Amino acid sequence: MRLCLVGFGSVGQGVAEALLLKNKFLKKRYGLNVKVVAVADSSGAALNQNGLNLEKLLKIKQKTGKVSNYPNYGVEGVTALEVLDEIDYDCLVEMTPTNITDGEPARKLTIKAIKDGKDVVTSNKGHLALYFPKLMKIAKKNNVKFKFEASVGGAMPIINFAKYNLPSCSIESIIGILNGTTNFILSRMASEGSSYEQALKEAQELGIAETDPTYDVEGIDAACKSVILANSIMELNCTLEDVDITGITNITPEAIDLAKDEGYLIKLIAEISKDRMEVSPRLVDKNSPLAVDGTLNVAMLKTDLAKNITVMGRGAGPLETASAILTDIINIWREK
Amino acid sequence: MRLCLVGFGSVGQGVAEALLLKNKFLKKRYGLNVKVVAVADSSGAALNQNGLNLEKLLKIKQKTGKVSNYPNYGVEGVTALEVLDEIDYDCLVEMTPTNITDGEPARKLTIKAIKDGKDVVTSNKGHLALYFPKLMKIAKKNNVKFKFEASVGGAMPIINFAKYNLPSCSIESIIGILNGTTNFILSRMASEGSSYEQALKEAQELGIAETDPTYDVEGIDAACKSVILANSIMELNCTLEDVDITGITNITPEAIDLAKDEGYLIKLIAEISKDRMEVSPRLVDKNSPLAVDGTLNVAMLKTDLAKNITVMGRGAGPLETASAILTDIINIWREK
Repeated sequence: MRLCLVGFGSVGQGVAEALLLKNKFLKKRYGLNVKVVAVADSSGAALNQNGLNLEKLLKIKQKTGKVSNYPNYGVEGVTALEVLDEIDYDCLVEMTPTNITDGEPARKLTIKAIKDGKDVVTSNKGHLALYFPKLMKIAKKNNVKFKFEASVGGAMPIINFAKYNLPSCSIESIIGILNGTTNFILSRMASEGSSYEQALKEAQELGIAETDPTYDVEGIDAACKSVILANSIMELNCTLEDVDITGITNITPEAIDLAKDEGYLIKLIAEISKDRMEVSPRLVDKNSPLAVDGTLNVAMLKTDLAKNITVMGRGAGPLETASAILTDIINIWREK
Repeated sequence: MRLCLVGFGSVGQGVAEALLLKNKFLKKRYGLNVKVVAVADSSGAALNQNGLNLEKLLKIKQKTGKVSNYPNYGVEGVTALEVLDEIDYDCLVEMTPTNITDGEPARKLTIKAIKDGKDVVTSNKGHLALYFPKLMKIAKKNNVKFKFEASVGGAMPIINFAKYNLPSCSIESIIGILNGTTNFILSRMASEGSSYEQALKEAQELGIAETDPTYDVEGIDAACKSVILANSIMELNCTLEDVDITGITNITPEAIDLAKDEGYLIKLIAEISKDRMEVSPRLVDKNSPLAVDGTLNVAMLKTDLAKNITVMGRGAGPLETASAILTDIINIWREK
């Protein structure tokens, strides 16, 4: 299986590291021989039809910031779209930054790969939240696999979870914590009594929050994920505009203390159902399965036959997110 | 897909009810048309190559206790093994009571069906805990599917969870609560201050514990499930004899109170790893994801890439267990 990786930030590098770690495992367990034939970042790309040396590539990226510095096979200034025409590959692994304005460059890259008959795995939320039904339709029409487990919940399985583990059930609602950054901030505020600003600063210093934390703290990231879940596992046809969103920027230590006195925590909860699409801070009983701390994600699926099923796991982290991307790659391979 | 159901107690009847409820759903979503051509219980069987009326069959079973009273197509005294020769079917759904002495009648039924080239789905733990590697080998040799999600955790996905959701990960250990009856008893002791005997009696009155609760309260049920998980998702070749088992019969309300004062609960914990196979009462931090109450089951999988992933759900109940059996049936259908 020849992969083309586009986007080589923390998730992309995580995938490269995971492939190095699990190379033998994948061969032995699944007979899956993965070869990375191209890696593109904003600087250009490294392309080798015989497969790139990922160890070398990671070192070069970490040292110089550019994959185009890869010796002999690095090309500066080439765009990812051009790379897709340059190389023979089987599966595009799309990991560019989420863009909720127009979903680019993920949208164009995904559509091109699909139309070229390639399978696509993505960790990106933007194009999915904006154009889910359209992208699915194109993938179906072109008879390719399009998978996106890593776009929601990091290492926490949720999309494949519903598909493979609850196929007999109608999923009536999902309630969960889908954003690790805000959960970290709220957890720190609760445990340390810190202000929102202090907790955000700490999260930024630890690399858990971005310099511009807007997407996370305003609830937009969780809302994008809610839209992806609604479309993919609940067959609700909706977009970002359908979600009522309230972020956590107005939560005070006093509110958290007050809740605590009554046995509750304040969490940024996503609720997805036919009647309600909402991301907002809510009171959660401290003994509820939803009361998870730190950067953990959690989702409680309310179903008809199995009743409530809950899953939790790390919502972020390079190797953790890579594990979800590899899951999709392995499932594509097994379903061939 | 023509099913032959063997065993028509609470789980078997749950499957019949679930099929009635989800008949249209299965057709619409998966193009799967399920027909039950035979149902066997200890009285005999009902067989109809054109499909049995499950509504009628459930009524007769509930009224008379015997499926052999099904009009025209009921046969008294026929054994399940004979039924497998009488009827054309695609998949055996084996739901006889667990027997950890010799695994019968599940073992013989399963082997016969497999050798006849039929797929098998089971909720039974006995033959799996005693003969796992052997049964897998025969299934592989005969190129049939043999699935057993319902044997561990009821509605809580765990076997398919590891296979489909964590295929990129090595699972280093599993720690969890795999028995709902004992978890109910311990939860009641903690919340009500009742003695072990009182809580057991209450569980029996609610149908959560059996008249002879030995398998559950001595930890044998959880140990069987541990063996199934060890073999199926951790590739450890072990049997029931390899598990250190301690039950909950000696737990006192005083011990529970003492633990509570320090912020702990006492839970019957199963630990499965290369170095340790153990079922025993342990202290669990009340804020741990493992601190689930009532008949809930929970499993925390420690993995290399995804780190800790936790799943929880109802460990028992007819429709809940049926959901796991239907999952296996649907996955067999999709993998054809």
